[in-house]
Amino acid sequence: MRHELDYIFRPRSVAVIGASRRKGSIGHVILHNILTGEFNGKVFPVNPTTSVIHSIKAYSTILDVPDAVDLAVIIVPKEHVKKVVQQCGEKGVKGVIIISAGFSEVGPEGKARELEVLDVIREYNMRLIGPNCFGVLNTDPEVSLNATFSKLFPKPGNIGFITQSGSMGEAIMSHANELGIGFSVVASIGNKADISSNDLLEYLKDDPKTDIILMYLENFGNPRNFTPMAREVSLTKPIVAVKSGRTRLGSKAVSSHTGALGGMDVGVDALFEQTGVMRVDTVDELFNVAAALSIQPIPKGNRVAVVTNAGGPGILATDALVNSGLEMPDLTPETVEELKKFCPAEASFSNPMDMVAGAGAKEYKMTLETIKKDERFDIILPIFVPPVICDQLEVAQNIVEALSDTDKSIYACLLGSGEDTTGIEYLKKHKIPVYIFPEAIAKTLATIHGYKAWLNRPQGEFRTFDVDNARVKKIIKKTVKGKEGTIVGEEALEILQAYGIQAAGYCYANSADKAAAIAKDISYPVVMKIATPAVLHKTETGGVIVDLRSDAEVRDAFEKLKKRVGKLKEGEQFSVAIQRKVSGAVETIIGMTTDPAFGPLMMFGLGGIYVEVMKDVAFRINPLTDQDAKDMIKSIRSYPLLTGARGAPPVDLAYVEETLLRVSQLVKDFDCFFEIDVNPFIVSPDRKNCTAVDARFIVKDCKF
Amino acid sequence: MRHELDYIFRPRSVAVIGASRRKGSIGHVILHNILTGEFNGKVFPVNPTTSVIHSIKAYSTILDVPDAVDLAVIIVPKEHVKKVVQQCGEKGVKGVIIISAGFSEVGPEGKARELEVLDVIREYNMRLIGPNCFGVLNTDPEVSLNATFSKLFPKPGNIGFITQSGSMGEAIMSHANELGIGFSVVASIGNKADISSNDLLEYLKDDPKTDIILMYLENFGNPRNFTPMAREVSLTKPIVAVKSGRTRLGSKAVSSHTGALGGMDVGVDALFEQTGVMRVDTVDELFNVAAALSIQPIPKGNRVAVVTNAGGPGILATDALVNSGLEMPDLTPETVEELKKFCPAEASFSNPMDMVAGAGAKEYKMTLETIKKDERFDIILPIFVPPVICDQLEVAQNIVEALSDTDKSIYACLLGSGEDTTGIEYLKKHKIPVYIFPEAIAKTLATIHGYKAWLNRPQGEFRTFDVDNARVKKIIKKTVKGKEGTIVGEEALEILQAYGIQAAGYCYANSADKAAAIAKDISYPVVMKIATPAVLHKTETGGVIVDLRSDAEVRDAFEKLKKRVGKLKEGEQFSVAIQRKVSGAVETIIGMTTDPAFGPLMMFGLGGIYVEVMKDVAFRINPLTDQDAKDMIKSIRSYPLLTGARGAPPVDLAYVEETLLRVSQLVKDFDCFFEIDVNPFIVSPDRKNCTAVDARFIVKDCKF
Repeated sequence: MRHELDYIFRPRSVAVIGASRRKGSIGHVILHNILTGEFNGKVFPVNPTTSVIHSIKAYSTILDVPDAVDLAVIIVPKEHVKKVVQQCGEKGVKGVIIISAGFSEVGPEGKARELEVLDVIREYNMRLIGPNCFGVLNTDPEVSLNATFSKLFPKPGNIGFITQSGSMGEAIMSHANELGIGFSVVASIGNKADISSNDLLEYLKDDPKTDIILMYLENFGNPRNFTPMAREVSLTKPIVAVKSGRTRLGSKAVSSHTGALGGMDVGVDALFEQTGVMRVDTVDELFNVAAALSIQPIPKGNRVAVVTNAGGPGILATDALVNSGLEMPDLTPETVEELKKFCPAEASFSNPMDMVAGAGAKEYKMTLETIKKDERFDIILPIFVPPVICDQLEVAQNIVEALSDTDKSIYACLLGSGEDTTGIEYLKKHKIPVYIFPEAIAKTLATIHGYKAWLNRPQGEFRTFDVDNARVKKIIKKTVKGKEGTIVGEEALEILQAYGIQAAGYCYANSADKAAAIAKDISYPVVMKIATPAVLHKTETGGVIVDLRSDAEVRDAFEKLKKRVGKLKEGEQFSVAIQRKVSGAVETIIGMTTDPAFGPLMMFGLGGIYVEVMKDVAFRINPLTDQDAKDMIKSIRSYPLLTGARGAPPVDLAYVEETLLRVSQLVKDFDCFFEIDVNPFIVSPDRKNCTAVDARFIVKDCKF
Repeated sequence: MRHELDYIFRPRSVAVIGASRRKGSIGHVILHNILTGEFNGKVFPVNPTTSVIHSIKAYSTILDVPDAVDLAVIIVPKEHVKKVVQQCGEKGVKGVIIISAGFSEVGPEGKARELEVLDVIREYNMRLIGPNCFGVLNTDPEVSLNATFSKLFPKPGNIGFITQSGSMGEAIMSHANELGIGFSVVASIGNKADISSNDLLEYLKDDPKTDIILMYLENFGNPRNFTPMAREVSLTKPIVAVKSGRTRLGSKAVSSHTGALGGMDVGVDALFEQTGVMRVDTVDELFNVAAALSIQPIPKGNRVAVVTNAGGPGILATDALVNSGLEMPDLTPETVEELKKFCPAEASFSNPMDMVAGAGAKEYKMTLETIKKDERFDIILPIFVPPVICDQLEVAQNIVEALSDTDKSIYACLLGSGEDTTGIEYLKKHKIPVYIFPEAIAKTLATIHGYKAWLNRPQGEFRTFDVDNARVKKIIKKTVKGKEGTIVGEEALEILQAYGIQAAGYCYANSADKAAAIAKDISYPVVMKIATPAVLHKTETGGVIVDLRSDAEVRDAFEKLKKRVGKLKEGEQFSVAIQRKVSGAVETIIGMTTDPAFGPLMMFGLGGIYVEVMKDVAFRINPLTDQDAKDMIKSIRSYPLLTGARGAPPVDLAYVEETLLRVSQLVKDFDCFFEIDVNPFIVSPDRKNCTAVDARFIVKDCKF
């Protein structure tokens, strides 16, 4: 049975609606590309004003085409799109690509036009790529379809490429062409009215011609779907993506800590952390990684041996590799002994192994043959700098000969040569990725190593806890009037309690006497905070005094805080909240913010100055697996403070993890929470003493 | 008067000693390069075994050359080098380049050989480049010297290039050639026996043909000299450097905090911070920056207007620019109004200004002419993606025409095209740097902007304080037996006091009674630490208890600490140090570590967990200017804790700065200090309460 996207990527017949005789017009170029690309199927130009284009019969409408049509490529002006899509439906077309622009990308009117078209697509059970896209192509000789208006048809390869921007797609294809990199499938997704990058990921997962997936994305249509899909695909096919970090919250005022920290790139980074997608910053890096993965399996480990005939590049490579987190162990004594038999005495028998300038093809062969037997290495990196008398090709041949039967990964660096010498061609042909400068290899290996580490880590599970959903709903209903509101104080803590999270209530006092009585009651030492609602971020205005140990200190603290708050507004009354100070405890913060592109992002960090000044927090896209929760706790710089730095006992990390997962479930269960701060969430070695002390929920678009 | 390096870079006559008839040999290639490079002077091949090379008369020795010789290029085997250098001296040669290898790069024997040669050089007052180098070249038509064995002679340009690695030099020149970038002077410095990168920087500073200096360095011969020289040159000519970060302390055991943190790249980063040298990570970045600086002045500011005909690259550019710290203000209402007169309604009148796909050459011209009048911008970044019907050259011409008379900086991005289209050529010819992908522009602008910020900041001064040098010498003499040793406790604090730094002594107690008596005496609250020498990093083993407020708490603390230390070795006695707790105070650490490449590095950070767990510290190369001290204090992430985060009063920053400078002076005055920790150095709002509480000096190679 054919996959529904096969009608788009592997069609047996294509109609080009809006094909044109006018040279240089898109309708002309696309028909031209399909014909010159030697499409392995039938092509039907459709144009009401002419009967022949490119010496092929043209039809007035698709309904006039005598044969069945799998795919329609539409290039007519935006006003006519709906009508021709309707005709496609009537004709029984299964796949539609709308190249035409003027839809949701141009504002509300275009958006309405797009939705109308989508209705027709849905009505006839068709699938749509675009509108406002660049087309698709498939280099599989069985298909050989170039339904794009690109100026080039890439050579066949094992890389599937999904691009949101047509112009970036063209630029990237052009660059790939220069580098000799081929593609299996290229799809430009345009406005993603129907088919999104998620659908294409799913399709490419099972495409036998595609081993690697490249993505150029500007935003994620539905990141909630993208996350699980990318996670699944990454397990079998590596995904490399250039994603710009345009996820900032802009000028929108945010009133929570989590919201303030959740701008910019944290969503994208979290997504890539969680899904194994290799994120690169530039198109050059994209190709450095893709070029390696397209011809070599992932290295078994990260231990690199560098073999060079020049000191400088050897040092540069070493620095770059070590700085990128790769390892460069010493050669074994056996290897050194073996090498000394034929290498000159001036050679440096370490890692990098510097054979010095005299080394030619023969020396490369013998040295590499020796080092490939050294079990300390997973990767061999020969660097060759052409001396005056040089036959680069001969060196390349000897590198290939020496290393053809090893299961170690080979990355070659041929300095001082152009991009397309015979030596470079020879190595590439023999499946050895070649780079001009060693830093590119280091960065590439680091990216691939990160992917490998992701593959090796436990994938984690989604846990579900028994919670009192109804009680939360009741609290929201009670406290939020209308659609929006903020829940603080006792109600906020009650929400946490309903989700099984320990939350200690405060004792409030509006006089020094009362404060002293409470302190005595809960027993010293105590913590006192300003509780007057007007003061929002209490700690920032010196509104907390910790570790009060006597009646006198408590009374003194009350007066101090009162003085700090100063004059209150009419009707407001100064009060403090008092709690017992838990010893051996660490303040953390658990939060959530809603990212416009990624939806809810969970946050974890240490509280107080760590979050306010050091901004030492970790974000992950909700929902979290238990592994995500573990990872985010471990990834903060101040993690050692949780495991017992400076002689303190370690806190109950399992409970921190569980609490993160419970908040994650709360966020998943109630999509009206826009921002959450559980701050501080006190954690301590004893689970009994772990407790949320304060919380804030910002509610938006409440449906009940 | 000729500069002494003019004899090397602008010689009137050159002898090639070791010139050879053997094709492909270095002696053959160099003579060939000088001849085919059309050297504007006389060339004399020297070879005892032949009388003619390349149809030129060859001489047996340089002494046989009838004319005066400015420069000798030596390619003879290493054993003969000393002899021919001696002859050069006798002949009155002023400059020598030794290409031959086999000197200090191959170990002690070669080092000895190099020193012997250097003796001869010094004896005759000659200057030497090399040995073990690649040669030098000068493209100035008045000179036109290619005394290298490179395969190419670069085109003339305004970039001076100093390279430590010959092979990287060749690779970089080859890459520059592909990009159409020219050089004024190229110098490969090899082993730097005499002339170092510092000498060359000094020379290029005054070379009228050189506007920009590129450096490829593996290490700094004498960074103490490099720092002031680079600082001075950077003020008039930008320096761009690729420097690998190979400065780690390796496996050497370090026992101080500062030492443990001072590995890897901190020295290089500090050097570049202090000298204004633009450090780039890759050769590609080197050229992106060099290409821009070689044809355009430094932008006046960092506000960028992006003008594009495609949304995708506009977004990519925006992300990259904003992430790189550049600003993208909105267009002024006047500009928008003007643009609306001729741009289509679908255009997006913001920044990026997206003219949408229909925009051609005319639209680029009109839009750019409007935006160049907008005072909100310093830089204009036109992005052009070729649509189907495209004349890239025409667009390029219109960009140039529109922007020829503006003082704003122009950086163009031409996507989807190769590296050398006619449009790209046209823009470059008209002094507009062109890039294929927008991220490269963002990174380039960020690097240049960093340089501009360095140029604009106060350069700072070296301050000298009245100190008691003799007292420090006495303490070192008294406490260090032999050449090495560690100074701790009272003596360490006394060293600081001798340099005018407030340092509070401890009171020691070996019983709970005594501890309680001391505490009462200095008045509560107090801090108690383990003082038993066996316990080194006290805070890491829970050896400090702060904020003790009563007799009972002091006694309790004493017993607790005693228990934590456990069983002591024979002869050791448990004791604690007690100090008054200063309120409103912040613990900082001031330190020094000796980097093998850079010498003494000063360190500053917040103490305790900030240094131990968060590793939040700043390094600068000693000696510090007052500006360096200011900068390093400001650059730590936890800086807000010093200026009054969370409602606390700000500490006396001027005193912190002064203390850093006093320690800097101490380090400069005594080169026997290998590592220093002043930890904690308590700082507080009141200068009276700023005090060093503990210090450690590690002494090595003590000369007295």
